[in-house]
Amino acid sequence: MKCSYSEGESLFSDQRMMSKFQFIRELDKLKSVFRRTLLLDGSRAENDAEHSWEMAAMALVLREYAEPGTDLLKVLKMLLMHDLIEIDAGDTFVYDAAGVRDQADRESVAANRIFGLLEEPEKSEFHALWREFEDRMTPEARFARALDRLQPLLHNYYTKGKAWQENRITAAQVRRVTSVIEEGSRELGALSERIIQAAIAQGFLQSDATLLSNPDSTQGTKG
Amino acid sequence: MKCSYSEGESLFSDQRMMSKFQFIRELDKLKSVFRRTLLLDGSRAENDAEHSWEMAAMALVLREYAEPGTDLLKVLKMLLMHDLIEIDAGDTFVYDAAGVRDQADRESVAANRIFGLLEEPEKSEFHALWREFEDRMTPEARFARALDRLQPLLHNYYTKGKAWQENRITAAQVRRVTSVIEEGSRELGALSERIIQAAIAQGFLQSDATLLSNPDSTQGTKG
Repeated sequence: MKCSYSEGESLFSDQRMMSKFQFIRELDKLKSVFRRTLLLDGSRAENDAEHSWEMAAMALVLREYAEPGTDLLKVLKMLLMHDLIEIDAGDTFVYDAAGVRDQADRESVAANRIFGLLEEPEKSEFHALWREFEDRMTPEARFARALDRLQPLLHNYYTKGKAWQENRITAAQVRRVTSVIEEGSRELGALSERIIQAAIAQGFLQSDATLLSNPDSTQGTKG
Repeated sequence: MKCSYSEGESLFSDQRMMSKFQFIRELDKLKSVFRRTLLLDGSRAENDAEHSWEMAAMALVLREYAEPGTDLLKVLKMLLMHDLIEIDAGDTFVYDAAGVRDQADRESVAANRIFGLLEEPEKSEFHALWREFEDRMTPEARFARALDRLQPLLHNYYTKGKAWQENRITAAQVRRVTSVIEEGSRELGALSERIIQAAIAQGFLQSDATLLSNPDSTQGTKG
């Protein structure tokens, strides 16, 4: 153990430890990347760090709705790391067609820089987990993505659709982005459809039928 | 799958699913429990949800410094759930002697209510994990607690000791609360001592020698 300190001397015992703490310092920036989703009390938007924590905690509570054999540790790793790329790439609103278009490129560059702060094996492991999450080819990725879409749906429902209304989102748009929930969990997929129907019935979300019968109508979509 | 909705009809397929989502709605309140620790840019205090996420992510990065055989999944579960009791009990500043005195009682009541929202097996599992974290008798709990003490030390150091100075905290007080880091990880314990020495050397933290030689001095503790 070092027992003295002089300017410029490293706090860290080696390069490996130093790179880990560079990465840890980077983590803090996720607390300043804000999302469109509101807190349940409607008081403010949540940030990516809060969202990532809530999703990991949700995975612990909802694990029985994942496909049998799903590796919970891997799901947690994905959920804890999946939004780090937004430190550089920003949060892309899922209904922002222009933003979504170049999202993959921006996020890929971000992943190289951010996970590249680490040495191996974490560098490759976290990068691969993020890619797996995006690709949705494994039960872990499908379950993690299901939670990532269910969480804002819940928040929108419990804040009476405020973010939907502000961004003029309709039920068809919501169903398009929540369709991946069913891929990750039959029970949570069925739940998300019930939430959408309840949101329409209570006027939180504009049904597409309303829109078709009266294209200029915003009836039922103002909170 | 239900295909209609009427007022009062539950969104949830059964009592079990409903209790899970009551618990998930409760989680959101942790985003409004603020700590003394500042974000690394010093712009504001962090909240418990952000803190819990950062600690879980730190566990993934620093796992090689845990005792051999430490169960990482268990560490993550502890870190994700350990602060939920603060929804009711509030964040007790680790240097607040009066607050610390009845902390255990307040937190025990909170744990009963909050984990009691869940059905079994999660109810008992999460309650036991919180208790294990508090008791520090297992490698998982010791490592999780080490991270819980290392994280604010890092934030205090990188914000030039602002929260230490505002609360007139000295090196001896910091060493008392960071002594558990060494119990959880030899490497991280040595690191924490280097951080404390560097903080004193740079005037971020008041050494006890300074205090003894000049009890009224606040020299070196104002940022």
